[in-house]
Amino acid sequence: MTEALSVGVVAPQRACFDEPLPLKGGGQLERYELVYETYGELNAARTNAVLVCHALSGSHHVAGRYADEAYTSGWWDNLVGPGKPLDTNKFFVIGVNNLGGCHGSTGPRSMNPFSGKPWGAEFPFVTVEDWVAAQARLADQLGIERFAAVIGGSLGGMQALSWTLQYPERVRHAAVIASAPKLSAQNIAFNEVARQAILTDPDFHRGHFYAHGVVPVRGLRLARMVGHITYLSDDAMGEKFGRSLRHGKTLYSYDVEFEIESYLRHQGDKFARQFDANTYLLATKALDYYDPAFAHDGDLRAALAAARADFLVVSFTTDWRFAPLRSREIVRALVANQRNVSYAEIDCAAGHDSFLLADPVYHAVLTAWFDRIEV
Amino acid sequence: MTEALSVGVVAPQRACFDEPLPLKGGGQLERYELVYETYGELNAARTNAVLVCHALSGSHHVAGRYADEAYTSGWWDNLVGPGKPLDTNKFFVIGVNNLGGCHGSTGPRSMNPFSGKPWGAEFPFVTVEDWVAAQARLADQLGIERFAAVIGGSLGGMQALSWTLQYPERVRHAAVIASAPKLSAQNIAFNEVARQAILTDPDFHRGHFYAHGVVPVRGLRLARMVGHITYLSDDAMGEKFGRSLRHGKTLYSYDVEFEIESYLRHQGDKFARQFDANTYLLATKALDYYDPAFAHDGDLRAALAAARADFLVVSFTTDWRFAPLRSREIVRALVANQRNVSYAEIDCAAGHDSFLLADPVYHAVLTAWFDRIEV
Repeated sequence: MTEALSVGVVAPQRACFDEPLPLKGGGQLERYELVYETYGELNAARTNAVLVCHALSGSHHVAGRYADEAYTSGWWDNLVGPGKPLDTNKFFVIGVNNLGGCHGSTGPRSMNPFSGKPWGAEFPFVTVEDWVAAQARLADQLGIERFAAVIGGSLGGMQALSWTLQYPERVRHAAVIASAPKLSAQNIAFNEVARQAILTDPDFHRGHFYAHGVVPVRGLRLARMVGHITYLSDDAMGEKFGRSLRHGKTLYSYDVEFEIESYLRHQGDKFARQFDANTYLLATKALDYYDPAFAHDGDLRAALAAARADFLVVSFTTDWRFAPLRSREIVRALVANQRNVSYAEIDCAAGHDSFLLADPVYHAVLTAWFDRIEV
Repeated sequence: MTEALSVGVVAPQRACFDEPLPLKGGGQLERYELVYETYGELNAARTNAVLVCHALSGSHHVAGRYADEAYTSGWWDNLVGPGKPLDTNKFFVIGVNNLGGCHGSTGPRSMNPFSGKPWGAEFPFVTVEDWVAAQARLADQLGIERFAAVIGGSLGGMQALSWTLQYPERVRHAAVIASAPKLSAQNIAFNEVARQAILTDPDFHRGHFYAHGVVPVRGLRLARMVGHITYLSDDAMGEKFGRSLRHGKTLYSYDVEFEIESYLRHQGDKFARQFDANTYLLATKALDYYDPAFAHDGDLRAALAAARADFLVVSFTTDWRFAPLRSREIVRALVANQRNVSYAEIDCAAGHDSFLLADPVYHAVLTAWFDRIEV
């Protein structure tokens, strides 16, 4: 195994699309832009491309770092690079910011050509299927007819799965990690709390806060705090923070007393400064809406019959947001359709967040799976 | 078994205390009032009294109904009454609103004698131990030297447990239901989100919203929505609401789409109209602070050595807020102290809320336990 190195300094690129994109929720986007990054080289036969789909708060910046910033490693930098499980010596890897995002692709912060003002809350609802359709057009522009693999975790896993259904002939392999075939009522409930926190923040201004020079910081902060509780397992939280008192004793105040409070406030504050509230709303709705079996009377096997790819499904024992049970539903439905499926249930303590970590067994599974893919 | 009947029409009573109550967090309450209700008759020997401790949003109104209101059944009316598991033909049952509450006992809405204005956020922090100390003085006033039993669920269970430690000679039996010896980091995290929702609501006015003629409705509503997610099990939520679409189809809007959203918003709105934000903050802090083992270097067995009561500990298989594991910690520590402990793990689907329901096995356990208590 070669020494694992970073892909180094990277720079985002931009693709413009002038052909209208019809949206699942009705209507269309007349024109849009997608910001993306690539790592490694596309081979002459164009058979080594891998698409990485991001989750709720991710972006196109999957690996490497930016020249002008010191601490900007991509969110899956431990996975993608020369000698890493998704080896850029072998594969041409693409990260793309989804439509409706806030990292450069057309989204609520972009100019609405009809009003000459930012879209704000008028940005159309985008679904997992819309994201995949937009990604397919990016693949067209890049001259990629067929992906060696599409991979994603959580909401990204839903995109990987959707790729195999929307464009079965364009995906040879799909890795669906820490994901689910649809949200549970509890998953939707947590999303709804996050949305209500944002929607009821007086600084939200019905989604047009840009014009008011404010940001719904309170709502975004609460939304992220709730999210973080669901990303970590109870045990991981217990091990990491326990009931440790920040000041060694009880203060009898509403200031930070327990370490876990400090962590949540920090995560909430950081997120509220950098993420767009309208994008957060859109992304949680995309999660809620994703349900490929809906059009098949809830029959997931029937829904996945279109898939032609070989699959890797990975879950984590301590993930209670998208528990292993949910991944097994996908596995069973794929196996019932005679698909080739590898399934790994990784014993990692970090809960849902495990999919972002470099757990050795998890990475060994990914390494072996990518190694077997011929390019 | 006699036919189960209601205790009928009840009326709250009020007890005044002029002797200052020292508080665990420092300082004291110079004078205070507790509102309470009683059901059944105190026997001549005064040996049949049972104290019911309430949880986060409960009150003294445990059973029966008020004369002037149609829909005001007590929160544990299915448990307390003639012929019910906690039989008022046998026992004299007391429900009391805790200090700092918002149902009539002295709390943040009460007049601060030092300022002549409502206490608001200046109301002192109250702990489980303070509540129990105040309840003991109520027992004194009522001429009850020793309780036949103290019972409570969730935060109420912590009070029942604390009674056996603070006043071991005054409690013959204690029922600790759906409770825990202390909160986990995850429990604290959920409380912290609820608090931050209230504290950052612009209408909170640092706890003095009474003077502004407003209520931090947004914050209270979010706090309650988060709470309700943790009260129900994932399965119970799935069975009750699933992913049912309210309008039969996807709306692509932020209005209510899924039934679970409707339920949460309804619960949140209802709660925000009637509950006091400062009380909610105080009660979540009382939960966070409760940790009898803290003074014993985390050794729960040592912490519970003072108890003399016979115990019933009950947990529910689907309760993920205070999972059975947490109840078993209490059981093990009590058994290690040679206490008489009955433990029941009830297979009820309703999650933490199960303790409020009339599950037949659960109620059979309670009936048998109370039947064995001599008065």
